[in-house]
Amino acid sequence: MKFSVTVTLKKDVLDPQGKVVQNTLLDMGMHNLKSIRQGKFFEIEVQETDPKIGEKKVNEMCEKLLVNLIIEDYKINKI
Amino acid sequence: MKFSVTVTLKKDVLDPQGKVVQNTLLDMGMHNLKSIRQGKFFEIEVQETDPKIGEKKVNEMCEKLLVNLIIEDYKINKI
Repeated sequence: MKFSVTVTLKKDVLDPQGKVVQNTLLDMGMHNLKSIRQGKFFEIEVQETDPKIGEKKVNEMCEKLLVNLIIEDYKINKI
Repeated sequence: MKFSVTVTLKKDVLDPQGKVVQNTLLDMGMHNLKSIRQGKFFEIEVQETDPKIGEKKVNEMCEKLLVNLIIEDYKINKI
């Protein structure tokens, strides 16, 4: 069973890496770019038949290791 | 108009960062983890009213800067 997890910085947290990308794109002439923010993406495969338990496990992984809950939000999707 | 872009390593490309995360999770006792791969995630806002043109612009950003097409795949979604 596969899940995807997207981790994004919370709205009010500065994103210096995204800012660099944004400036570079603007320098390249992409003037209709309004904003860009960068995050992380995980593709996780767990050995589990029950989707609910699978998602619970993935959620545990996120909270314990993958996500810094102070500055980041995350979203789990079954794929 | 907002788009999300997920960038993942192609299937046959080694993912050392993901491997470290995988080993750490296994060490933490998550034994039903089968595999984990890490990628990048972008949230892009463009000033555009036509979704088709918007997506084309985002696609151009991906091919010119955000994605290394030799080793990475990408997927654009409207959000």
